[in-house]
Amino acid sequence: MSKLLIKCMAVLTMDGEGEIIRNGEIAVQDNEISHVGPAGSTPEDFVPDRVLDCPRMMAMPGLINCHTHAAMTLLRGYADDLPLMQWLKEKIWPLEEHLTPDDIYRGTLLCCAEMIRGGTTTFADMYDAMGRVAQAVDESGMRAVLSRGMIGFGPKADRAFSESVEFIKEWHGGAGGRVTAMFGPHAPYTCPPEYLKRVIEAAKELGVGIHIHLAETLDEIKEINERYGKSPVALMEEVGLFELPVLAAHCVHLDDNDIEIMARRRVGIAHNPQSNMKLASGVAPVSRLLEAGAVVGLGTDGAASNNNLDMLEEIRAAALLQKVHTGDSRALPAYTALLMATAEGARVLGMEDTIGRIKPGLRADIILLDMHKPHLYPLFDLYAHVVYAAASSDVDTVIIDGRVVMENRRILTLDEDAVLEEAQRTAESLVSRKEAKVNG
Amino acid sequence: MSKLLIKCMAVLTMDGEGEIIRNGEIAVQDNEISHVGPAGSTPEDFVPDRVLDCPRMMAMPGLINCHTHAAMTLLRGYADDLPLMQWLKEKIWPLEEHLTPDDIYRGTLLCCAEMIRGGTTTFADMYDAMGRVAQAVDESGMRAVLSRGMIGFGPKADRAFSESVEFIKEWHGGAGGRVTAMFGPHAPYTCPPEYLKRVIEAAKELGVGIHIHLAETLDEIKEINERYGKSPVALMEEVGLFELPVLAAHCVHLDDNDIEIMARRRVGIAHNPQSNMKLASGVAPVSRLLEAGAVVGLGTDGAASNNNLDMLEEIRAAALLQKVHTGDSRALPAYTALLMATAEGARVLGMEDTIGRIKPGLRADIILLDMHKPHLYPLFDLYAHVVYAAASSDVDTVIIDGRVVMENRRILTLDEDAVLEEAQRTAESLVSRKEAKVNG
Repeated sequence: MSKLLIKCMAVLTMDGEGEIIRNGEIAVQDNEISHVGPAGSTPEDFVPDRVLDCPRMMAMPGLINCHTHAAMTLLRGYADDLPLMQWLKEKIWPLEEHLTPDDIYRGTLLCCAEMIRGGTTTFADMYDAMGRVAQAVDESGMRAVLSRGMIGFGPKADRAFSESVEFIKEWHGGAGGRVTAMFGPHAPYTCPPEYLKRVIEAAKELGVGIHIHLAETLDEIKEINERYGKSPVALMEEVGLFELPVLAAHCVHLDDNDIEIMARRRVGIAHNPQSNMKLASGVAPVSRLLEAGAVVGLGTDGAASNNNLDMLEEIRAAALLQKVHTGDSRALPAYTALLMATAEGARVLGMEDTIGRIKPGLRADIILLDMHKPHLYPLFDLYAHVVYAAASSDVDTVIIDGRVVMENRRILTLDEDAVLEEAQRTAESLVSRKEAKVNG
Repeated sequence: MSKLLIKCMAVLTMDGEGEIIRNGEIAVQDNEISHVGPAGSTPEDFVPDRVLDCPRMMAMPGLINCHTHAAMTLLRGYADDLPLMQWLKEKIWPLEEHLTPDDIYRGTLLCCAEMIRGGTTTFADMYDAMGRVAQAVDESGMRAVLSRGMIGFGPKADRAFSESVEFIKEWHGGAGGRVTAMFGPHAPYTCPPEYLKRVIEAAKELGVGIHIHLAETLDEIKEINERYGKSPVALMEEVGLFELPVLAAHCVHLDDNDIEIMARRRVGIAHNPQSNMKLASGVAPVSRLLEAGAVVGLGTDGAASNNNLDMLEEIRAAALLQKVHTGDSRALPAYTALLMATAEGARVLGMEDTIGRIKPGLRADIILLDMHKPHLYPLFDLYAHVVYAAASSDVDTVIIDGRVVMENRRILTLDEDAVLEEAQRTAESLVSRKEAKVNG
């Protein structure tokens, strides 16, 4: 049994606004938070094996990235500033065609290294070769919700289904409970209702949730409306998707009825402000969703459309974008924005009893931010500092499931130099394989 | 005579798109760039006193922050998420009332420390007690364009004018040429035409430019229209402001005629996307301005409405915001966005023959970014990496006017710990002075 005691200048528990413990301490037993309170409040019978004494650091829950495509870090900066369909058809898809499971493993390791450095402790991923993704997650020490992306028509639809089932059976609850699996039907416009119904049945049988892209672009709204005479959200409601725990990425274009459905059905929404901005998809109605009582978290989307996996940046972008979009500087205030990356992010993933707050009984996913930086002085409002001023490089220490995964900005679980070098080699090889095919 | 040779993995000269020198070197003699080219191309008679051999770093021009209020870093996080006028009237102005010249000096030092760490080498400031601001700039080693903010009505209007003249006479060309002075009439709605005309005459006499806030909010547009029957830009044109070199901050709300005037008059525009988002002021029509041939740079505005002075973040926000605002993912592509923070920023300040590019004959304001980070792998497009993925903490080394001001992320010109501690003490004292007045 391991016992870790963390002492720091402040703890943002994210378990209620204003729940800030100045000069606080957190006791961690094995993978669980056993106590949090002011200095000296830890029960005397808790004799720590190790004390992290960090008087200049602030503790908060690890950040939760609700939507990404980890291996796409390999495509970062490969193509930018193009219209979405041209970007996908001419650049991204032709390159992705050549990705091997090994490439995906290496890309995911790169992604994990970057996310750990930025204080992300949990991420929800949709991609391919998910066994290899899970392996990278396991090695990195991270927590993840993984789904095999499925296109529901064409010759690969059945294989996507059977591989998903196989992956879920093998990995759901794996990596010591750090990996959760979901089905990953890609989107309403790539998965016809019949296919979705098959997925829904299987998800009910296997007791897992569903990760899907939903209402991302106006093109999607138009296409689904033309084909089915209703919005993508209404179609998903009709198909029965929302009878299950659902993680819906984007939700940019929603009408009032859609918002009512999302809130009533407690659909987990992953808002991806920077990707939506970069691809010019639009601005999700986050303030209206929150008013309606919907559950909204944050995601970075893949690094090819962001181009990093920096959750502190994403929190800031979400808050600033919603203010300018609504014309109201009170929209998405600091605490609410920070909730989306912590406690509410956990709810989006159906993990609110496991992660997202610093509270006894929850898993010990904790990050420590070094506050002794010019851009964090003077110290007035800690929520405002994290949301409007902090940078991912302020994250000094990362604890996931009770294990110190990064300390003093050194990742302890991965050989970072090797990860970077292999990622570079893999990306170069990928491009040359694609070009060989184009030219051959 | 000092001679410095910088060797690095790449040089982004910002002197033309694609002007990237892989495996490059830059020779710096005293405060000037004397040569830039591929490895080994420096003339043999250049015998360096010092070589910075940085195989994992990329060199580019120092970033130019075209609009800020340096001392307002002391108010960072003091009040957020409020409507603009309530924020100003209830929070910011009552606190600013108590600022002493010493406070302003300490706040500016904090600002300089943060800006140097983020790769900013030049900033344009408008505030009060500018002699003390200039002193902080001088000590930090930075380059700055400084203006004493002037409110053109009320009992302080004359003092603002005479102090401005005094400051300009003392500091224009000061700190070894690193300080340039301007007049700083605050805005069209705080400076009546008669006052502005007086400022214009004096600026012509003294041979300096003018820094002003312009067309920031819809309230301003409404007020000026009601009072003068025209837009703020049209009013400034009529008053004769644009006969001088002008640095106009914000320019959020412009009609077609305004855009035509701004472009024809070559007015330097400081776009402040994050401040405009946070205060819900609106989105400046940057793409349309650039199409019209206007000169547009970037600024952070003060840290009270941002809440940091991170120019890499500002570049990213500008690019992403313009894409989602125009609905076109091609808007403000990476190179154009980066130009705004370098070569075009220099043009905005009327300093295009001095700074903003890495080119022989220009001042040596150079930053080195450490590219050996997970979020910068793999290396495809360097412009895209800087604009969409890089972080201020990637800036390893900062050279201003030929002097190494930061190296290996250690600031060499300031005692950073002392600056932070004094800023904290000053901010706390400021708040207690304000509260003493409120309660007394």
